[in-house]
Amino acid sequence: MSKPTWFLLAAQLLLPAMALSGERVDLLITGGTVVTLDGQWNVFENGFVAIRDAKIIAVGDASSREPDDFQAAETLDARNKVVLPGLINTHTHLPMVLFRGLADDLKLNDWLNKHIFPAESRFVTRDFVVAGTRLALAEMIRGGTTTCCDMYYFEDAIAEETSKAGLRAVLGQTVIDFPAPDNKTWSEAIASVESFAEEWKPDELIQPAIAPHAAYTVSTEHLKEAALLAERLNLPILIHLAEVGSETDYTLKHYGQRPVSYLEQIGLLSSRVIGAHAIEVNNQELQILRRHEVGICHCPQSNMKIAAGVAPIPQMLSAGLRVGLGTDGAASNNDLDMWQEIDTAAKLHKLHSGDATVVSARQALQMATLGGARALHLEESIGSLEVGKMADLIVLELDAPHLVPRYDIYSLLVYSAKASDVVDTIVNGRILMRDRQLKTLDIEQVMTDARQIAGRVRITLESAAP
Amino acid sequence: MSKPTWFLLAAQLLLPAMALSGERVDLLITGGTVVTLDGQWNVFENGFVAIRDAKIIAVGDASSREPDDFQAAETLDARNKVVLPGLINTHTHLPMVLFRGLADDLKLNDWLNKHIFPAESRFVTRDFVVAGTRLALAEMIRGGTTTCCDMYYFEDAIAEETSKAGLRAVLGQTVIDFPAPDNKTWSEAIASVESFAEEWKPDELIQPAIAPHAAYTVSTEHLKEAALLAERLNLPILIHLAEVGSETDYTLKHYGQRPVSYLEQIGLLSSRVIGAHAIEVNNQELQILRRHEVGICHCPQSNMKIAAGVAPIPQMLSAGLRVGLGTDGAASNNDLDMWQEIDTAAKLHKLHSGDATVVSARQALQMATLGGARALHLEESIGSLEVGKMADLIVLELDAPHLVPRYDIYSLLVYSAKASDVVDTIVNGRILMRDRQLKTLDIEQVMTDARQIAGRVRITLESAAP
Repeated sequence: MSKPTWFLLAAQLLLPAMALSGERVDLLITGGTVVTLDGQWNVFENGFVAIRDAKIIAVGDASSREPDDFQAAETLDARNKVVLPGLINTHTHLPMVLFRGLADDLKLNDWLNKHIFPAESRFVTRDFVVAGTRLALAEMIRGGTTTCCDMYYFEDAIAEETSKAGLRAVLGQTVIDFPAPDNKTWSEAIASVESFAEEWKPDELIQPAIAPHAAYTVSTEHLKEAALLAERLNLPILIHLAEVGSETDYTLKHYGQRPVSYLEQIGLLSSRVIGAHAIEVNNQELQILRRHEVGICHCPQSNMKIAAGVAPIPQMLSAGLRVGLGTDGAASNNDLDMWQEIDTAAKLHKLHSGDATVVSARQALQMATLGGARALHLEESIGSLEVGKMADLIVLELDAPHLVPRYDIYSLLVYSAKASDVVDTIVNGRILMRDRQLKTLDIEQVMTDARQIAGRVRITLESAAP
Repeated sequence: MSKPTWFLLAAQLLLPAMALSGERVDLLITGGTVVTLDGQWNVFENGFVAIRDAKIIAVGDASSREPDDFQAAETLDARNKVVLPGLINTHTHLPMVLFRGLADDLKLNDWLNKHIFPAESRFVTRDFVVAGTRLALAEMIRGGTTTCCDMYYFEDAIAEETSKAGLRAVLGQTVIDFPAPDNKTWSEAIASVESFAEEWKPDELIQPAIAPHAAYTVSTEHLKEAALLAERLNLPILIHLAEVGSETDYTLKHYGQRPVSYLEQIGLLSSRVIGAHAIEVNNQELQILRRHEVGICHCPQSNMKIAAGVAPIPQMLSAGLRVGLGTDGAASNNDLDMWQEIDTAAKLHKLHSGDATVVSARQALQMATLGGARALHLEESIGSLEVGKMADLIVLELDAPHLVPRYDIYSLLVYSAKASDVVDTIVNGRILMRDRQLKTLDIEQVMTDARQIAGRVRITLESAAP
């Protein structure tokens, strides 16, 4: 046997044996600063994350493992980068990206009643929802959001698109006491929730939910019915909760109580509930929300832009409430950029409280990760980089002037990092973006379709203008 | 004569003649949506900008010109892009990027007295200022800032770096009643202003200025001296003005007046003054600032982060004050991202006033451009795309999911665009960034030098920690 032949044969025999000495994994991320957000603030400077069957099976410092501990089908080199849990957007209306910038700088009632509701009733079809959802998914993946919680119409279409693109989501089919773009009556809406829940119940990415719009748009009787249905089908309940003064005025006038107390009294509040905004909340109501383990979606930029007010977030965090961050729909924000929500959350409460120490960088980043998971009642499976959790994680590039120098990694991520610094997005162990290239969406087609629909909206509205 | 030779000769004769039929320009930008911010809100959907000798010599719609109107030495194709005036950062401390993230989430006094002032006295040298300025310039150019107004130490070094990198700037040498990193005594500081003004006076990019730090760090006598020196040397005066309650407490205690009234009384206020923050301003003081044509630098994110308060911007805009936007130093913000300031300015005042119609997208973008020019008393030469103004402009890429669709260009720029969407930055007719590639700075070297200095800061502070 000649030497090369002998060598090749030996290699063929030996290499698999060596490889078998390591545990087989689907994806191995190495070399980055791993920010776990695990509750103990563990950061591994030269860390690794090993992923198998969509789950994290190991995470730690490179020095704690041997080079051949793992046999990885795919590796991702994160040197000079940061690896952290994917961001969780706890409140949004995905297809509304197609109304981004349609109507701004308006009083809330004018904005909703003269622009958004009429535009929705006129333009929101299943096709609109499909195109809008795809555009929203592209924006979210590019910005490092790995889970979202949505409430809108044609939610089954949103589920299908979200599942195809590979994002994790809690998706709430809206039920409301008005003819909606999808369902014209309450009974149709309830039936659509049942079929939606039936269709998507066992999905590994999609958690179907019921979304009664708000206390001022759904009657007491219907809210009770929604709560019973959620109980029967084991669904989360998504609701706009104590968002503005006019909502408080409404429930005081019609039910003699402020929103949180009213909803508790009629039996809606429970650990199924994920409530958006929670601005009109006093200390007593804060305890009600805590007692019922209600998830809170804090949307600081939306709250500022529509002049809704400021949620008592420092108090909620002190009381141990389940508080996550959300962007709200892009018609009211006007983007799905979680990094700006994190930055704004940290700054807004300092200003509002007059205390520059509240909502620290760590707390702000935690709200966007583990806090968001707690708000969605999913903290057992997502929100941090820990063994046994689902492999939802993102990688940020640090090699840019606005991220130099680096003293404190949390400060850097919260006050200086941008959505555009995210280079890789992984959900359920699947790479949805690598080196800023989307893997599950045809971005050019998505934008072309979105522009086409928006073009029809524009032309229709312009021709209708006086 | 053979045919090829004859043809070449004819071409040599004819081509220059054809070219001469068009006006010679240095740079011609074509095909983009040109947002002029000219005061009449002119937007040219298929626009052009022609630049010669660092100035804009023509701007308008493509249909208004013939194809051979211009003979351009260089052209820039801005199809599917937006062209707008460069952003003006009216208040910053450039070298403080090297303290980015060093100390956050602290009470103002702790932050300043226990962290920033000690770090400055320990680490700020001429080399530190050079490295920090270069890093800051890279970040600003990448984010579309074309003019900045800085106050720091070793301002002559900042001038040299800024001039080399090609940015326009108003640069204030700090004078303060404490030993500073550059000057240990008041007389040294005053002498340094004189030599700085002497050296940089005639520069086409750099306007030297004097920067008495604040009413609580410079005595009455010294403030008066600074005002006289500014008058004699014809310099702008940069000052931190009515930033926080503790400043008001100080001037009330020592001078019996609130900051604005006190500074007026001692003769400091004039159209030379560019005042940062202007939060502690009542209606009467607002009229004082207006009467003296004081330039106002509004820094919403810094004001939020240190819990300073909210400047009465809607009232200032209504009263016609000269209001621009600024990032403040990166130790307090923590970046030089004007896009986030624009977005925050529009949202913050809606929340603070409870009126979602105040500080519209147009007003917010104007504050960052023409408003900033007015705040710096430079509105005759910069701040909008108009014939005769200096050619300071930027180009944004619109081909990204977060910028789709487009209904209103101002809404899109203010509420959805990011610093990372800027692709070209041009100052004084010179391209400083093209397709996101910096032309006047070695970005890798700049980051390496910055990291090296920050590494020394980190090691020193860590070894000194208890």
